[in-house]
Parts: sequence; C-alpha cells; structure tokens
Amino acid sequence: MKLVVLGGDGFCGWPASLHLSNLGHDVLIADNLSRRSIDRELGTDSLTPISPIQTRIEAWEQISGRQLGYQHLDVAGDYGDLLQLLRRFEPDAVVHLAKLPSAPYSMKSARHKRQTVDNNLNATHNLLCAIVESGRDVHVVHLGSMGVYGYGDMGVDIPEGYLKVRIAGGDGRWVEREILHPTNPGSIYHVTKTQDELFFAYYNKNDELRITDLHQGIVWGTNIPETLCDERLINRFDYDGDYGTVLNRFLVQAAVGHPLTVHGTGGQTRAFIHIQDTVRCIALALDHPPAHGDRVRIFNQMTETHRIRDLAGMVAEITGAEISRLANPRVEAEENELSAQNRCLLELGLEPIRLSAALMREVTETAVRYRARCDFSKIPATSRWRQESPVRPSLSSDRARPGDLRVAR
Amino acid sequence: MKLVVLGGDGFCGWPASLHLSNLGHDVLIADNLSRRSIDRELGTDSLTPISPIQTRIEAWEQISGRQLGYQHLDVAGDYGDLLQLLRRFEPDAVVHLAKLPSAPYSMKSARHKRQTVDNNLNATHNLLCAIVESGRDVHVVHLGSMGVYGYGDMGVDIPEGYLKVRIAGGDGRWVEREILHPTNPGSIYHVTKTQDELFFAYYNKNDELRITDLHQGIVWGTNIPETLCDERLINRFDYDGDYGTVLNRFLVQAAVGHPLTVHGTGGQTRAFIHIQDTVRCIALALDHPPAHGDRVRIFNQMTETHRIRDLAGMVAEITGAEISRLANPRVEAEENELSAQNRCLLELGLEPIRLSAALMREVTETAVRYRARCDFSKIPATSRWRQESPVRPSLSSDRARPGDLRVAR
Repeated sequence: MKLVVLGGDGFCGWPASLHLSNLGHDVLIADNLSRRSIDRELGTDSLTPISPIQTRIEAWEQISGRQLGYQHLDVAGDYGDLLQLLRRFEPDAVVHLAKLPSAPYSMKSARHKRQTVDNNLNATHNLLCAIVESGRDVHVVHLGSMGVYGYGDMGVDIPEGYLKVRIAGGDGRWVEREILHPTNPGSIYHVTKTQDELFFAYYNKNDELRITDLHQGIVWGTNIPETLCDERLINRFDYDGDYGTVLNRFLVQAAVGHPLTVHGTGGQTRAFIHIQDTVRCIALALDHPPAHGDRVRIFNQMTETHRIRDLAGMVAEITGAEISRLANPRVEAEENELSAQNRCLLELGLEPIRLSAALMREVTETAVRYRARCDFSKIPATSRWRQESPVRPSLSSDRARPGDLRVAR
Repeated sequence: MKLVVLGGDGFCGWPASLHLSNLGHDVLIADNLSRRSIDRELGTDSLTPISPIQTRIEAWEQISGRQLGYQHLDVAGDYGDLLQLLRRFEPDAVVHLAKLPSAPYSMKSARHKRQTVDNNLNATHNLLCAIVESGRDVHVVHLGSMGVYGYGDMGVDIPEGYLKVRIAGGDGRWVEREILHPTNPGSIYHVTKTQDELFFAYYNKNDELRITDLHQGIVWGTNIPETLCDERLINRFDYDGDYGTVLNRFLVQAAVGHPLTVHGTGGQTRAFIHIQDTVRCIALALDHPPAHGDRVRIFNQMTETHRIRDLAGMVAEITGAEISRLANPRVEAEENELSAQNRCLLELGLEPIRLSAALMREVTETAVRYRARCDFSKIPATSRWRQESPVRPSLSSDRARPGDLRVAR
C-alpha cells in the first residue's frame, strides 16, 4: 500500500512509519516537527537520544534497504500542500497523527489551549476536506483516545464507539437506537478528540469517506524491533510533566531514584497499551479497511486497565522506588472504575504484550540505560487545570465525580 | 446589565442589540463586519437598504438617546483584543453570534468549509478561554441551532438539549442516564454547532462557566419595532441561495413574480421562529441566567414546525405565486417528521408570533416594498453538498434517510 503518515516523526508516528515500511508498504512521512519545537519551548528533551528526521530516514534506508519519503508539512496550516501531496503521491491510506497530543500541555495556559484547538481541529478537517477535494478514495486511520468516553460515567462496559440505548417514546414504548458513545473529555486536548469524532461522522455520512478511529489508551514503552536496529532509529521517551505518560514517568523516576509521583489518591483507572501493540494495531486497521458505505469504524486500542496506584505499586516492587502522593492538578474523579471492550483488534489478530511480562525489560533497556540524560527539574507536573479567580465564586471540588449526569454526552 | 454582542451587525445580532439597548442595557457591539464582506464576495446585497454600522449607531443614538458601543473585532483572530474588551468593559454577559452562519455557504467549496470551521470553532473557543483568563464571571448566551439534533432521527419529541436514555448494564439491569442529545448535523456549518456544544460542556465542567445555548430554528421575518423606527436602522433581508432562509426566500420570490423554489419533495420538516421572537428569547435568557454550578442550559428557540412544501403552499395561497420543484442540492432525507419541545422559553414568558397571523404583513412590509432591489440572478441555490468523483465509487443516494443509525449521535 502507499501510505502517508501525518505526524510520522512523533512518539507513535515514528515507530508506526518504520513498522509499516518494514511490512513492505510505501511510506511517506509528513510532519512539521512540532514535537521537537515544543521540546525547545519547554526546555525538555527525550530521555533517549533521538536523531534528526533526516538522519533517521538515512539510517533506515541503510539498514533496511527501504526508502521512506519525507515532506515538511503543517497539516493544519498548509492546506494547499496537503492537497498536492494527496494528488501527487496517491496514497491508499493516510495515518493521521498530526496533533498536539498532550493533555497537560493543552491546559498550561490560554495560549496552549488555543494552539491545541486551532491545530488539532484544523488538521483533522483539512485532511477530510482535502480527500474530498482530491476526489480520491483514501482510507483514513486516525489515532483517537480512550479519553473521549469519560471514565466509566455510563456505568457499563465501554463498547467500541457505539452505544445501544433505549429512549422513551411519547406513547410509552421504548425506541432503540445505536449512538456514538456520549463523551466526557478530561482536558482541552481530549475535547478536540471528541470534536474529531463529529467531523468523521459527518464526512462519512456526506461524502462516504472510509474512516477508522482508533481510541487509544495511554501508551507505555519506547521501542519496537525496528527502532532497536540502530541507535539512530531510537524512539523518543518523554518523562517530563507535560508529555511523559504516567507509566513511562514511573519507570524513569525509579531508574533515577526519584519517588514515583502519584497525583491524588491514585484511584484513577485508565486503559493502557504498549507502543509495540500501537504499531501493530495501526497495521491491522490498514489491512482491514471498512467497506464503502460502512459507518466510521471505531476500535478501542487498549489491552489492559489499571489503577494508577497499582501501577506505581508494581514499579515500586520491581525497583524498590518510593511512592510520593502529590495534589492532583486535574479536575477529575479521585476514584473510578473503568472497563472497556477491545474485541475488534483481538479478532483481527492482535496478541497483546502484557504489562506484567514486559515491564522489567522496559525498565532496564531504556530507563536505566539512559538515566544519565534525565533532567530532574522537568519531572514535576506544572500544568494546572483550573485558575482561581478573585472575581468568580470559588469553584466547587466535586464537579468531576463519576457518573456526573450534568456533563455526560 | 453590561452586555457585549459579538456579531452585533448581523441579521440576528443587529436587532438583538437594539432590543437590548431599548430595554435599558448598556450594549457594546463587537463585529468584524464579515457578513458585509461576504456580500461583496458573493456579489449579493440585502433586499433592504442597510446602513453602515456607524450610521446605524448614530441613528439609534439620535432616536433613542441611548449610546451603543462599537468595536471592530475578529473574535476568532484577535484573542488579545477580545481579552482586553472583557477586562475593560466588564460585561455581565456576552451574546455570542460571531459565526459564519450559513449552511449553503459552508458547503460551497473546500475554502468555504475550512473558513467556517476555522472561524466558528476558534471564535467560540477564544470566547470561553478569554473569560477564564479574565477571571470574570460572565454569562455566555450562544445562538446555537436546532440543526444539531438531526431531524427526528431519535424518533421522539426533541427535548431541550438533554435526552434521558437507558443503557443495558452487564448484569441485565438498565442504567438510566441523561446525555446531551445525539447529533446528526446536515452541513459543515451545523457540524461546528455540534462541536460548540462540546466546548460548552467542557468549560462548564472544568471552569464552571455559566452558559445558555439557544438552539434556534430557521428565522423568518426582517424587522422588529426598534429597526422600524428609522430607515437607517432597518435590518438586513437575505434572499440569495446561500444566506436567504427558506421562508424569506419564498416571500421575495412571490413579491417579484419568481416561482417558489422547493428543493426535492419539500417534505423536509423544519423548526421556525420569527426574528422578533429571536430577540425576545435572547433578552429572556439574559434576564434568567443559570445559577453557579448549573450545567449548560439549553433552550429550543423555535415556535412552530412546518414542512417546506406546506410553507410554499401558504405563501402561494396568499400571493398567487407558482411553485417550482428543483433537485435538492443537500444530502438529506426527502421527508421527515419533526417535533420539538420549547417549554423553557414559553415558561419564561415568550408569546410567539404565529406564522399564520404575521405572514401577510411581512410580505407587504418588506418583500413587496423593496422588490425593485432584487437581483434575480442571485435567487438560485448554487452550493452542492457533494462533489462527484471519477476515482471514488459512486455515492449512494440513501445515506441520510431518517433514523439512520450509522450516523446518529
């Protein structure tokens, strides 16, 4: 297949691009390298020493003998270039990761909120709009988020995208409908993911675009076999308060002798997936596109759920690290149950990497190996979800309790 | 109250501003005059001879003795100015109409789709973000659309924003939840309205902003008592294929001897409201803000529902006009039932202007009076919802049938 990977230089995009190339696909990466710019903005750096995109691509060609295309492209800003890319390269599918993908980053300040909204919504819309304008039949595979569902608000096992409900008809009968699962996003970043779903539903209805939306859990791990071939191919590993995902942060904290930072009670239950399963899921979704006329296909791309404090406990047990409880900067329930279905990807052949089996390897292969590169000052999470105001009445603390009917969608 | 009306030079914004000023509120209009720019882009003009905003404001001051503030402001683009306005003027509430408000305009081309998305989403988000940054306690009254609900897809009377549903729990019990009504928008313009709802829900949850979302039906009529005081105050009346609303288009077509243009079977049922009720509803919403801690308040701002062919029949009967059936440029169900609740505004005191009583007056006062200004060439609707493609498989014609489960949200 001819594939464009939008955001192919990022944490998920780079290993996905290599994996897809290794499977024999003709891959073109389009990226504006915004993740690297944000590292400069925040004064952060990947724990692993990542190479410039040009070096990455040269190394991959030397090692695999396969060509990787690269185009510097701002998907949200350079619509004309995006359209030209579709017309010239004629991809069978586009893997869409051209997002500002961090919840804490999206909440840092008004500027960060606005930048996330402007980039993420225009990027998704530009892609859909350009596919229609190009007239081409392109399968879109989008990296969405499990965070669109809220965390167990509906009180049922989270289905894959669509929820069967009953509605009271005027005549006392119950009308049965299948709807997009109501959303309850936990940050501006997650809000944009819920809005993406509405773009997808509309372009699927009006223009019959074929779309797969992968609602991904929190990714952990760093490398896949392809990124381990050569140090120039190594994937990024974020441990800072904005871009580090929770389990990866625990791993590096343990490796450098920093207490594991649990926010609040740690009773938040979240869905997880290993980076190696991420890239496999994308390949599976590409190999099994929806048929023409199908609705938007939604898969839950996660393999297990855990409470944050249980994860901290597992890491502490392996490494002997201490656990430190900090105030929670987020507006969210202190404790929640969460269970979600992931049958679709398992049926396509995914064999999940279990956290219990792979955790120790990740600790030694990455966190310990590169711990000398860790900047301690970047570990604390500094984004705050709320700004206290002298003018407005004080904000209540119980707004995000589980099953909050006022905000469920 | 101190009020800012964003988009206060437009079709709903101008009469709303005068009405609120006349009620004794201190009103400041902020507008980038984009509606006038679009008239130049499309080569269209209001049937009524509208004055420049400066003339309008001077005339109102002469006639009423009341000051109206005005600031040229692009809400989607000038975030810093918007924030300064909130800090300097210190409004109690903001009426938010700073949108590109036309479904056909939003579907004209890729550029128009992108412009609608970029303007409408950034405008709403900038406003919410600026209120949080300002730290002020500002009630937001937003003009939403009945079009967010889809047209009777759920098979029940459309409630005001929130729908009670039952969900099958794993243990055979039914879990009851109240959710935002699933959406099924009919154009890119309407998509942005469904996405606005998600912004509102989030800022209400995270920052406890007080928000009223008025889901408005299709507006008909032109003037209110305040805009009839002086010809310099007259409101705009659009009859072109992009901005003219269906009933106003029928009225001017009848006045100039053009057949009434019914798209498709005319079996589409829609919700309607007179412009005079629009401004009253906005005033009622402002007078009765939600309490701190309340969820987003949603009112259905409509007073009656009609089938398009029945409206054409009513106008034909009054005026003797012929009816002409044209191919439908939209992707939508040919026929649909629609009934919706509007109890909230009635309970606050709205006494609706009935179409049956006021239609004849509207024909003579506006359409006939200004018919010499009509440009016949602007009457046809030229936007097409779909672009045929030589590459993609031909699009099916039944995608938008009522109750289509694939797209309901």
